This record gives sequence, structure tokens and C-alpha cells, in this order.
Amino acid sequence: MSSLTLELGEKCGIFGVAGHPKAASLCYYGLFALQHRGQESAGISVSDGHRLVTKKGMGLVSEVFSLKDLEDMTGPLAIGHVRYSTTGESVPQNAQPLAVKLWRGEFAVAHNGNLVNATEQRTLLESQGSIFQTTLDTEVIPHLMARSKEPEPDKAFAEVLSKLRGAFALVALHPRMLLAARDPMGIRPLCFGKLDGAIVVASETCALDSVGASIVGEIEPGEILISEGTSFSKSRFSEKKPQRLCAFEFIYFARPDSDIAGLNVHRARKLLGRKLARSHPADADLVTGVPDSSLSAASGYAEELGIPYEMGLVKNRYVGRTFIAPEQSLRELAVKLKLNPLKSILKGKRVVLVDDSIVRGTTSRHIVGLLKSAGAREVHVRISSPPYRFPCYYGIDTSSTGQLAAARMPVEEIRKEIGATTLAYLGIEDLEEVLSSAGGLCLSCFTGDYPAGTPATGPVEPIS
Amino acid sequence: MSSLTLELGEKCGIFGVAGHPKAASLCYYGLFALQHRGQESAGISVSDGHRLVTKKGMGLVSEVFSLKDLEDMTGPLAIGHVRYSTTGESVPQNAQPLAVKLWRGEFAVAHNGNLVNATEQRTLLESQGSIFQTTLDTEVIPHLMARSKEPEPDKAFAEVLSKLRGAFALVALHPRMLLAARDPMGIRPLCFGKLDGAIVVASETCALDSVGASIVGEIEPGEILISEGTSFSKSRFSEKKPQRLCAFEFIYFARPDSDIAGLNVHRARKLLGRKLARSHPADADLVTGVPDSSLSAASGYAEELGIPYEMGLVKNRYVGRTFIAPEQSLRELAVKLKLNPLKSILKGKRVVLVDDSIVRGTTSRHIVGLLKSAGAREVHVRISSPPYRFPCYYGIDTSSTGQLAAARMPVEEIRKEIGATTLAYLGIEDLEEVLSSAGGLCLSCFTGDYPAGTPATGPVEPIS
Amino acid sequence: MSSLTLELGEKCGIFGVAGHPKAASLCYYGLFALQHRGQESAGISVSDGHRLVTKKGMGLVSEVFSLKDLEDMTGPLAIGHVRYSTTGESVPQNAQPLAVKLWRGEFAVAHNGNLVNATEQRTLLESQGSIFQTTLDTEVIPHLMARSKEPEPDKAFAEVLSKLRGAFALVALHPRMLLAARDPMGIRPLCFGKLDGAIVVASETCALDSVGASIVGEIEPGEILISEGTSFSKSRFSEKKPQRLCAFEFIYFARPDSDIAGLNVHRARKLLGRKLARSHPADADLVTGVPDSSLSAASGYAEELGIPYEMGLVKNRYVGRTFIAPEQSLRELAVKLKLNPLKSILKGKRVVLVDDSIVRGTTSRHIVGLLKSAGAREVHVRISSPPYRFPCYYGIDTSSTGQLAAARMPVEEIRKEIGATTLAYLGIEDLEEVLSSAGGLCLSCFTGDYPAGTPATGPVEPIS
Amino acid sequence: MSSLTLELGEKCGIFGVAGHPKAASLCYYGLFALQHRGQESAGISVSDGHRLVTKKGMGLVSEVFSLKDLEDMTGPLAIGHVRYSTTGESVPQNAQPLAVKLWRGEFAVAHNGNLVNATEQRTLLESQGSIFQTTLDTEVIPHLMARSKEPEPDKAFAEVLSKLRGAFALVALHPRMLLAARDPMGIRPLCFGKLDGAIVVASETCALDSVGASIVGEIEPGEILISEGTSFSKSRFSEKKPQRLCAFEFIYFARPDSDIAGLNVHRARKLLGRKLARSHPADADLVTGVPDSSLSAASGYAEELGIPYEMGLVKNRYVGRTFIAPEQSLRELAVKLKLNPLKSILKGKRVVLVDDSIVRGTTSRHIVGLLKSAGAREVHVRISSPPYRFPCYYGIDTSSTGQLAAARMPVEEIRKEIGATTLAYLGIEDLEEVLSSAGGLCLSCFTGDYPAGTPATGPVEPIS
Repeated sequence: MSSLTLELGEKCGIFGVAGHPKAASLCYYGLFALQHRGQESAGISVSDGHRLVTKKGMGLVSEVFSLKDLEDMTGPLAIGHVRYSTTGESVPQNAQPLAVKLWRGEFAVAHNGNLVNATEQRTLLESQGSIFQTTLDTEVIPHLMARSKEPEPDKAFAEVLSKLRGAFALVALHPRMLLAARDPMGIRPLCFGKLDGAIVVASETCALDSVGASIVGEIEPGEILISEGTSFSKSRFSEKKPQRLCAFEFIYFARPDSDIAGLNVHRARKLLGRKLARSHPADADLVTGVPDSSLSAASGYAEELGIPYEMGLVKNRYVGRTFIAPEQSLRELAVKLKLNPLKSILKGKRVVLVDDSIVRGTTSRHIVGLLKSAGAREVHVRISSPPYRFPCYYGIDTSSTGQLAAARMPVEEIRKEIGATTLAYLGIEDLEEVLSSAGGLCLSCFTGDYPAGTPATGPVEPIS
Repeated sequence: MSSLTLELGEKCGIFGVAGHPKAASLCYYGLFALQHRGQESAGISVSDGHRLVTKKGMGLVSEVFSLKDLEDMTGPLAIGHVRYSTTGESVPQNAQPLAVKLWRGEFAVAHNGNLVNATEQRTLLESQGSIFQTTLDTEVIPHLMARSKEPEPDKAFAEVLSKLRGAFALVALHPRMLLAARDPMGIRPLCFGKLDGAIVVASETCALDSVGASIVGEIEPGEILISEGTSFSKSRFSEKKPQRLCAFEFIYFARPDSDIAGLNVHRARKLLGRKLARSHPADADLVTGVPDSSLSAASGYAEELGIPYEMGLVKNRYVGRTFIAPEQSLRELAVKLKLNPLKSILKGKRVVLVDDSIVRGTTSRHIVGLLKSAGAREVHVRISSPPYRFPCYYGIDTSSTGQLAAARMPVEEIRKEIGATTLAYLGIEDLEEVLSSAGGLCLSCFTGDYPAGTPATGPVEPIS
Repeated sequence: MSSLTLELGEKCGIFGVAGHPKAASLCYYGLFALQHRGQESAGISVSDGHRLVTKKGMGLVSEVFSLKDLEDMTGPLAIGHVRYSTTGESVPQNAQPLAVKLWRGEFAVAHNGNLVNATEQRTLLESQGSIFQTTLDTEVIPHLMARSKEPEPDKAFAEVLSKLRGAFALVALHPRMLLAARDPMGIRPLCFGKLDGAIVVASETCALDSVGASIVGEIEPGEILISEGTSFSKSRFSEKKPQRLCAFEFIYFARPDSDIAGLNVHRARKLLGRKLARSHPADADLVTGVPDSSLSAASGYAEELGIPYEMGLVKNRYVGRTFIAPEQSLRELAVKLKLNPLKSILKGKRVVLVDDSIVRGTTSRHIVGLLKSAGAREVHVRISSPPYRFPCYYGIDTSSTGQLAAARMPVEEIRKEIGATTLAYLGIEDLEEVLSSAGGLCLSCFTGDYPAGTPATGPVEPIS
Repeated sequence: MSSLTLELGEKCGIFGVAGHPKAASLCYYGLFALQHRGQESAGISVSDGHRLVTKKGMGLVSEVFSLKDLEDMTGPLAIGHVRYSTTGESVPQNAQPLAVKLWRGEFAVAHNGNLVNATEQRTLLESQGSIFQTTLDTEVIPHLMARSKEPEPDKAFAEVLSKLRGAFALVALHPRMLLAARDPMGIRPLCFGKLDGAIVVASETCALDSVGASIVGEIEPGEILISEGTSFSKSRFSEKKPQRLCAFEFIYFARPDSDIAGLNVHRARKLLGRKLARSHPADADLVTGVPDSSLSAASGYAEELGIPYEMGLVKNRYVGRTFIAPEQSLRELAVKLKLNPLKSILKGKRVVLVDDSIVRGTTSRHIVGLLKSAGAREVHVRISSPPYRFPCYYGIDTSSTGQLAAARMPVEEIRKEIGATTLAYLGIEDLEEVLSSAGGLCLSCFTGDYPAGTPATGPVEPIS
């Protein structure tokens, strides 16, 4: 939902191809389908079997690559990456894939997730003379590769992965080989499919759809997929552990047309909305959602209670990265640039506003205010997930989450702060029940229980 | 609907401000709200009371203007323009506003619509020694201004407007004065409002909302609005004629949160969907619309018949102007880049697909194919407007419409060509009934009856 | 000389081709040879016999044109222009050629010189409804062409030229025809040559050399050259008047390898130096010149007196338009960025510094100071032209000359101000004698006698 | 001379500052004065005492840095670099300074010269896990720094330098310290001076002049200069060995206003010309040189024999990196784009052409042809250095020298190939005598005797 749209940053989408004559072009189209996972930078590495060529840059996939770039990137193996957007920390050298020359040959890697032991690995490597070029946790991977004595790239890769802790879905490229791997708990998603004889790997199934690949399945937690072209093999770099898939992929991150662990995201959201309606109904004239991520949950909520579902807010799709925010003197005038409420729909009505989460609460307060200014008589806010109380160490940008509303105060306080008539959240058991078919979940942002550890060694407290 | 998204180009959105210290910045934000009316180029002219400064360029509003541009454009009077996007003919010098120096001082003008007597006026002016700089019909306006002997700019403007035939909503700027005018039949919309003491003019009310202006009303057909700042006056340059407002503004062009002639666009579309459901019901499991313009009509259709409304297609919002289309060898693979059908929703279902129009039919065939490939058992296509049979001379880009399907063949042939199970259009009387509160309509694309004449002198035939 | 390098701006170089399959590429190379006449902007118009294509922009020829530009500019007829560089007034729309569409077809024109009746012509044209796009005096030419009733372009051109007063060397393009003309007194130079069957026109012969053309001669004052390809004809638009060629072309503007009116520029400068040595000798150890324009005169001076000619100053060739001038705190440190004196050559020596002119005197003071700081015991300044006392209205940028030293004070005062041991100028009779083979000269900047009138009607006073 | 201008690439100029509040701006101006040593890329690293900031890019100093860059680069310590220009191998990541983060803090280094043991050092480092980012020999320096256990940066630097073989003049930056060093034989020059309290280091004295610094002396072979601000100290990283300063710095590379090892470059060239005149006089009407590097030698030659020195060729200064070379069909036409001979000076004359070297011979043939086509009756070529027969491994780009004329054939054959009437070279003893005051010289390109070894282990043969 929009709270998250504006406040959270998901870290990255990845894509890989082996055995297709237009591997880099397939990456380009696959990254378009994953663009919602990151708009800060984009990159592709391609191999013609001998040498890697890497092109990356700041901005959207469409801004980074020209037709000439794609024509110049020939070869049957490729990986690609889109990176999330935050302010301040974003610099070109942090774009991925990271591509380097090692003693055993060229190597490139692209990463979705977060390593919790990156700092200690980096300190150790630097004290031994390694020179880091970026501020990315991911960069420990090529440096560990450089120091591995294992001559085979796939074996060296497995050796390196066994030293990593945290959340990671990875695609990597050696001049003759595509490698893909997922952390031992499968916190971040990673699926693969086939396209004619080629192997295609992606963060989400919508990217497989976009290039016409048929879905084969998921890369299992702790597994490496290896492909030199038309065939592939799998091996394990870690013992089998219980899966802990990020629940927020269903709640907010993933595209509604993706299936994760066999469950369609739109369907899951609609069911969350229905469940929420049963546990927290409201007496209202209409239900509306915040474009775009909450629309499925909102329509589920409306359908369950038989209340009309209406378009209460229109989102301006052109307000993007390069938009110049209004200066102070115009700020109060220009309140409806991003979201405009429909007065003729809302005036005098009792409204249910369904959203997928509340992070800091400021956006929710803004939206409730918009609905009221358009004449809504009552605004009943319903959240299709439990209260978000703990920082994420596995790939959601907690540095910018600031003060988590649900960590600071009880629900009734939040209701007052956002100005809602009533406020209710989905229960955590309801969430688990709806998503049960997807297997074990990481719910750390709701519970503070971190399955893959944290960067800090001490106990984790709710942040406020 | 998407047929139109891909095939029609609406000509332009305009915005004007008088009496606000940040007039250019207001234009910038107003143009963001009108960006759906044109993505090819954008421009703003501002006056500090003595001199005009104009900045324009190719691309989106966010691409054309930098923060420094806005800071440099000081003064209380401004006009702005966004222009539609087509391929081939688009050149920087055709961006608007057109700003020139005349013997009576500087003058700038921005235009939405199409003049049907531009060619004959231009030929006459050129034979008398005028030098045209663009290929725009609009450029006859500054040249007629240059030759007017009338010293007062508003009087000269009225004199010039009386020589124009066709469709035009205009904003113009003189160093001391904002001028706005609408053609004698009001084919293109133009509304105005107030913001503190300032006057704001816009193609649509959503742009007034976006800057926080309160809506006062519409500029009437044949009227000029004149403002030097906090106050305004109105005068007529033409006798009152019956209004003929473009029906396609409601069907497709305008933003759903705009009101035109007092009628909300989302509401109108929903009513068109309900009307269509009553005249052309379908026995189906679910209703879906083509994102984004057909969603209102689709939900109206679903609601009227009590069939569930579902998300059957997801649109990739990042496929924009700079997207590199797949080369031939990848085209069949990459079929779902722009629209991806949700298999788990559609599989085995009887589906109603609501769209707002069919132009050439190729897009409709593509979408019906997508739904079927995702497993839809039946696809009942319902169009929320009458068959589109005649070219538009008043501001829709007919040069790119190519072969109009409904001009070439009967409905049953179209049904076969697009592969639908059944196909039905809204009747023209139903259309008129739903939109009746908005007053007289231009229906020329459905009827071939051109209220303001055509560029050709002979009779008009349906094009094929 | 350097005073002029830094203080005066010569207006423009022009080039034209008819009858060569690569006309635009020839223009490109010809403009390179004329780049010393203007670095602010460059432009080329080409005709394929039917349509004109024009490309122009700010900067050097090498910055404005890409290989693709040249490949796209096909056709046998072309004209080109380089424009001088000043600060402040330079804007892209003032780049030339000026290309317009007239009732009789397309037309482009490029101009070297200055029209003294441009303002009155423009006022008249604007009052009749003409819209000017630039602030160039040159723009009256296309507007007069637009209003001419003469159907043949060459006849219309002659009619227009007869209305112009001042200095002009022109090349113009009609889709089927190259036109070139020189003002009735031949104030600015214009020559032409042959290359295979093609006709080539240029401001200077060095540009004819650069493309391998053989020199035929000069376009005579008051003449038009007309060529549709391999042949050419000439006609007159004005009666024969006495020639008044700009003497400053020899003194400073032209390249040393050009011949003007049959006289080589390097040779002329060397002779000026010799003449100066005879009339104003100095008792010194060495002679040095200011790079680059004064080197010929300095070597002539040295040779005449038998004093060694030495390299006393080295010029940094990379200090160009985009150089960032030192801020105040570094200014005194960074005194030798542009010119560095050679201490080991100058230390303890009596030096003759030959320069071609003194405009404001500030640069001369700076250079004399450099020589002294490097240890020169005496600095005898010798100027190879008479005192520059009057503004130029025929193509030298007088707006930036500011206070002319020689108009403000007698020679002895100038000597004190620039810190020279002695100072002497070439006499005007000596100048005329050396250049006598070139025919009648315009000496207005020395005498205040303006052969083609001035923009002002009143008498002309020396400016101070 | 022009042969070299067109065929040889000198590797780089360096500059460093310690203890000046505008250190980065001083670097900017210092690099302008060194721009003749490299036009491919430019870069500056600055330290505020805590952190390094580095900005570099392809192109001239004026193209790489904006005013904002300089304003953003605050701090009292800085180093800068300009890199030579070749085609093909030039890529942005090879621009210098190389700036990295090491365990002991940030470090940046800029290099003029060539390391002959870089490949073996790199192979060793890579096998131990180091990841190289560039293809520069210089990059072994930061990697060796990273692996040094020495905590003090100056001691670690000395330890690293002792492992390097070949030619190197270096400036390096640690957050609190400027380091500068010169290889044990002093093959490449490096001097330093004072500016107020600050220390300034540069490849040539002309760069010290340009910022107003007074020259203190040279950094001795095998020495390190260390400065944390206003004071400096020196230490040795190598025992004293006999100096072997590159003779080509005097012959061609350095600016005429620089002094190297106490000898002025212009003076040295003039003396080389005089010496050449005595050993190889010619009976001729005039002497001319190839602009710009041979002009000093040519005037010395003329003076010695009492033959007039004339401007026989004019160089077009605007033919730079971005110039579009004429396509095949225009090549023969456009022969005089870069150098134009002065017919009126040369016609019928017996000419001595003085040049500084002949590399492949193609340029010499071209220039002799130009003089003859302009009417020269005889062309006596005199070269102010011995025959260039062996590749340089110490900083001259031998990869592009191709076939060295003097290695392939005797002098008489070269004379025929270039079309000269007579041809003579300066003797090696004459060269040594003229430059004797500068101390021991590297003459390896004339003799094949490589004082600091070669990358290959086997004996060195003249290349052909």
C-alpha cells in the first residue's frame, strides 16, 4: 500500500538466463517485469562463453540501456539486477551486478537480500589486503571467491555461500556458467523456468511470464542451480532447514500476477482482505483501497461484506523520481498532486479504507485527511497485516523506516494520530492461516523473532 | 481503454495562472495532473509583468523542467502546455507555448484542439510575407495577432479568434495579461477556478484540484476570460451556439477524478458500464477491465449484473516511451511485457472483458488472445461506446488511427477478427442518455456529423 | 595580437558549396579552417535540390556536428557559418545559417559583417506584421525575401540586397541554388574557387586550401555569384563604388596563410613589422611577439634591425571557452595560466615587444608586467598598426571594447599606463603603403571616417 | 615535432599540493599547464584531513571539471593527473588518480611512467586473492599498500616502492599526507616548489609557474618527499644510482618554458638546432619548422647559418580529439586541414625543414609533400635528434609507434621514402653534449640500452 510505497524500500530483483542466443535482451525484458522491486539502478552482465561484458547505471531499466547496448551484449549467458531507491546513499558504484576479474577468470554476481555477517567478513578480508570498491554487503562474495583455492567456479561458489549468514537470493555468472542460489531458509524468493531449451531464473514468476518462459519451480532454500546452457543441475551448499519465506512479499512487495511458493499474490491479498472483513467488519457505505498495492485486499474486504467497492482515490502515475517537490510556500496548496480524492464519490459517505500496512503513520494520516476533506463522514481504516513493530534485517530498508508507529504506541493511539474513525489490523494467526499453503514464513517484522540472526549480537528490542 | 491507449493520441492539455507569485511553479504542478493528455513535449511561459520567459522541450514535464528552471521563471502570470505523443512527426520546435515578439509586445499561446481552416489562413499569410517557424495549425494565431491593427491585446485576440474555425481551447499570455478562450461550440473542455486571489485555468478539474484551487466553472463556448491578476472579466468573440462537447473526453481521455460540465468522469464511465450491462448482458463467471481507462466501466457492468469484478490483467507501468521493443526473434516470447493475464483467476472461467472502444481491432485481438491463453473458457467483449467509424478533425490524432475496424466491417466480422465469444457495443442513444446532463455533444467519430466543419470541402465518407 | 585576442570579437566566417556530392562535409572542413573567425556557434544548411536541412548549435564546429549529422546532410548545395564569441548575449537562436520557409520555398542565409540600417528595416517590417525570431541584424534579409514579389530567388535576393546598408559578406541557399554576395564597398572579404566541377565560396583562401580547391578570385564589391552546380554566373546588385576593405583583416583577423585581395597575410604582417622597425627602431637585445597573431610582425621587426627574435612568452593552448577562471583568492597566484614568460630568455635583457594593437590597454599592461617580472630590464612596445580610436560598425564587436585607450589619452599616457619603457605605433601612411596592393581600405577605427555610414545619424565622436 | 605529435603518446603529467586551502583548485590550474602531456583523461583527489574525494573523467581538464566540482572538493591536500591519448585502449576506469579504501585508511596515487615488473607483481597478487579493477600497471601500488603490514603510510609507501622496477614519478595522497616519489634512476622528471607556506609538486616547472609557486628543485632519483602541510621532509627508498633522465623530454615532450634539471627546454632545443646546423648545414633560401615543437630548433638552425627563418606551415589549432576525419572520397581533397603550407613564402625556394624526430616516416613524407606542392624547389630535412630505433618501456606509447623507420632501413632509404632532397640527423654525441648540464640521460630509444630493464627477459632487438 501507499504507506509502504512511500516509506519502505525493498532491496532488489534479480534475473538470470543460460542457453539463449539473446540472453542479455531476455534479461532486459525480465528486469522490466521486476522494476517494481527497485528503481534506483539497473545492470546486466552477459557472457559469450569467454568474456563478461557488464553495463549498469542509475535509473530505470529503460533509462540505463540503449538499443546499442543490447546489440553489443552478445552471448548465451546473462544475469541482471534492479536495485531499490533511497535518498542519499545511492551511488553509481553500488549498482549491480558486481563484475570482477579473479585469478580463475571473470565473475559477476547480483543479490537480493541482506547479509548479517557482511561487516565481520569485510573487516577480516581488508585486514588481509583486500580492497573493497563499494559499500555493498554483497561485495564480500567476489572477495571470498578470489581467495578460494577451489578451481571449479561452482564448487568455489558453494564454499563461499557456506560462509554467509542472512537473506540472499543470488544469480552469478562465470564465463561458461550461470549460478543461482537461495539462502538456507529461503527468506527471499527465487524461481526458475524453461524457454525453449534455455534456463531462466527470476525473483518472481511474473518475470518468467514476461519472456514467455514456462515455470518449473522454486530454487529450494540452501540450493545452488548450475547451468552451462540447455541443461541444469542442482546441489546443496547447506543442510535442509525449515523454510522462512518473507511474508511481506505477499502483503506488499510482489506483483499481484506472481505466484510465490505456489500461491498467487493477488489471490492471497484478496483472501487477506476477506479474512480481515470477517474479523474486523465495518458498517459503511463503500470500501476503497489505496492505489495500487491495496486494491486486491480492498476488493476482497468489500466482497466479503457485500459493500460496494469504489474508486475513492486517483494516483498520478507521473509523479516519479525526477519530480520536483513543491517548495514550502506551495506545499499546502499542492496537496493532491500524488493522490486525488473523488469528491462526488466520497461526499457524505461512511468509508472503509483498506491499506496493507502502517509504517510511520504519516502517510495514513495524510490519506485519511484527504478522504475527510473530500466529504467522507466516517473513515474506518483496516490493515491487511499485523502491526509492523520490528526492523527487518533481511532486505527491507529499515534505515528509512524511522519511527515505527506500532512500536511506539498502542493501536488506539495510532487511530487518534491518523484521525480514523476506527482502526483494526489483521491478526497474526489469520495471516499465517491465509498464507499457510506457502510453507514456513519469516514474520520477524511482526514478532522480532529473527530466524537467520541479526548483525548485532545482543537481543533485539522493538525500535521507537 | 487499452485499444485507445495504444492507438489514439489526444492533443494536449493546457493550464494558466494569473495573480499568483509562483505562477510558473503552479503551472508545473498543474501540468503534472494533465500529463495523461500528452507526453511528447511540455512547456511553460511566464511573465513578470514586463517580459515573457519560455522554457519547453521534448518529454515529460518532469524531464523538461529542472528546479533551476522553476526558480528562474519568476512572475505572477503563466501558461503551460503538454503535447500528445506520436512517432515520426514529433519535433522540438512544435512544442508549445508558441512565444513571439510582436510590434505590440511579446505574446505566447498554448492550444488544445485542431483548427480546420489553418491551411487556408497560413497560405494567405505566407503569400503576404509571413514566415512560419513550425508545422502547427496553432501558429496562425500569433501571425494573425501580428497583423491586427487593434492596439489592445484582448481586443486583438478576440478579432483573431473570430477568424478561426474548428476546435480550440486556448490560454495566451501578454506581459500584463492572461487570456483564455474556448471555441464557439465548446468542443474541447476548459474550466477555471480560484486559489487565494489568483485565477487558474485548466483543461480538466483534476489540475485545479492538484494545486488546491476551488472550482468556479467552465469557460463557456465562444467566451474569452481576461485576467491581469486578482480579478477577471469575460467577453464573447462569437455568438452563442449550441454546445458540442467531445463525448470521448468522458469515454476515454479525461482523468476519472475530473468533472466535465458538472459530470464526474468516473461516475459517467460506471454508468456507461451499467447501461451496457442492461442492454447487452452476458452469462459469465467474472468481469474484468483493461487497465486503466476501462476499470470504471467494468466495475459498473459487474455491479449491475451481480457478477464478481476481478483483476484479470496486470499492466506493467514501466513500459514507457523509452522502452526498446523486442526484435522480431523475441517478439513471440515477450508477449506479456505490457499486460500479463492472471492464470489462477482466469483459468476455466467465462469472462466478460469490458473495454471503452475498438479502433483498429489489433489490440483487442491481442487482449482476447491473452485471456484465452491464460485459460479463459469464453470471452465476451463489451464496449462502453458506439462503433468508432469516422475520423476526428478536432484534436484526436486520426493520422495514426489507420484502418478503423468499425468503418471496414460489421460487428459480427469484428467479433471474428478479435476472437471474442460475443461482442456488443453501447448504443448511441444510451451514450447520449448517460451523458445528457453535460449538454450537447460532438459525436462525429460515431456519426460523421461534423459540427464545426472539416478541412476538406467535399462530403465526408467513413474511412477504411 | 593578444590584446585583440582577449578583447575584440570578429563577427563570423562563411563558406558555401555548389555542385559537390558531399557539400555538407566540405562545409564542415571549410568551417574548421575559419574557426579562428568565431567560436561561439556553428551551423550548416544543405540542399538535396528539393529540401533544406539545417543543423546548428553553440560551440566549436567539432562540438556541434557528429558523424551522423554529416551522414544525414546529403545533397550538392550547402552553406556554413561560424560565429564570434562574446559573453552574455550569446544564445542558440542567434546561431546561423538562418533557415526559413517562404511562400516561394525554403531559404537560408549566413552573414559576416554588420548592417547599419537593420533597426529601421526591422521596425518597419514588424509594424507590417512580421515576426522576428532572433536579435540578429541578419534576420531582416529573410523577412525582406518573404515580402519580395519577385518569383526568381536570385532576382529577389538582389532586390533585397539593394535595401541593405553596411558591411556584409553573405552566402545563401535556395533548394536549387547557391547565392553569394559582398557589400558595395567590399568591407568584408569573400573569395571563391573551384574543386573538380564544384564552386566553393569562403571568407578566406585558407578555407579553399583546406578542401583542396583552387582559388579563382574574389567576389567583387556589389556582386552576386549564382550557382546551381557546376557552372556559375555573376551579376551586380549595386553600382561599382570604390573598395573599402577592412584593414584589420590584415592586421589581426585573418589567418597568416590566407591571401586577401592578392596579398598574403603573413607577408603583409612581416612587412608591417619591418616598416615599424624603420620608423620606430629600438636599441634592444631581443625582439619577441605576443602569440599567435603578432609573431609575423615581430619577426619582421627583428629581421629589419638584425636583433635576435626569441620566444619570450608561451601561450597555453588549452585555456579555452570552458576554462574556469580562478576565484579572487587565487587570482594573483594564477597569473601565468594563459601566458608564461621564459625567465632564462628574458632575464636582464632589453626587450622589444611587438603587438598588433592596443584596445583597452589592460592586456598590454598585463603582458609588460609579465616580461618585467621575468627579469626584462627594458620593455619597448611597438604596435604594428595606428592607434585604435573609433568604434567599428562593420563587424568588430565594439560593444565589448569598452574604453578605447587611444581615444582616452595621448600615446605618452598609454605608455605610462601599460608600464612600457617606450611605446610607438605604426603611422597610418605606412599602413596604407604596405597594404596598397590590396586596393582601397576601410580605416574607420583609426580615422572615424565611416564609408558605409553608421547606425546613428549624428556625427561620430571618438568613444572614451 | 609533428611526427611525434601524431604518432607518439607520452604517458601523463602529475601535480600535487600540500598545505593550501584551495588545494584542488591549484591542481586544476596546474593540470592545465601539463595538459600537453596527456589529453585522454584527467582527475583530482583531494583530502580535507579525514576523507578523500576523487573526481576524474575522459577528456581535457576543462571538460572533466565543473565549477561545482571544484567548489565541492575542499581541503588542503590534493593530487592530480592527466593521461595520454591513444585510440582503442582508453577507458574511463583507467583514469587516475586511483583511489581506494585500505585497512589503514584511504589512499590515492597518480603515476607518470611505466613499471616493467607490473605483470609479475599483478599475477602474484591475484593468485593471493587481490581483485584488480583496471588494466593499469599502476594498480599494483595500492594492492601492495593494502598488503603492507607497516602502519605508517609513508613507511608503507617506501616499502612498496622498493618492489617496483621501471620508470615512475608518483604523487600519492593519504588523508593526512602528500607523498611524492621518483624512480631510482630519475627517468621521468619531477620537481617541487613553494607557494606561501604550501608545497607544490609537478612534472614540469611550467606548472609551478602557472600557480605562482617559486621553484625549489627536483625530487632526486630514489627519493620520497613527505608533507603534511606547510613543512616537508625527504627520505630515500633506494640507494643512490646514476641518473638516467629521459632525453625525449628535452627533444619533444616538455613545454619550452619548463626547466628540467636546471636546463631550459626552449634553450636546449635552440642549441640542438645550432649544433645540427654546424654538423649538417644546408645551402638554402629559408628555414622552417613544423609547428609547434620544432620551432625552437628551427630558429636555432636558421640563426646559426644566417638563413632567414620563415613561417612555412600554419597549423589548424582546432583539429582536436573530436574532429571527424574525412571519409575516403574526400581524403585527397582535404589534405591541408591540419597543416597548410604558405605558397607565397615557399614558391621556388630551397627550404630547410627542421623536425625533432622521425618515427614511422609517414608524417614526414606528408609534410615534405606539402612543401613541394606549395612550390618548394628543394626540401632539406634536418632532425634535431638521433635516429629513433628502439621501443620505449618507460612511458612513451610504443604500442602505437608501429614500424620505426630508422629500425627498418638506413638513412638514405628514409630520405627516399619521405621524398627529401637531403636528410640528416643530429649525432648522439652532439645530443649528449648539448644536454650535458642536465646530468645522465636515458637514451634507450636511440641505443637499445635499457637502464631499468625491460618487461621481457630476453635480449632486445631493434623492432621493425
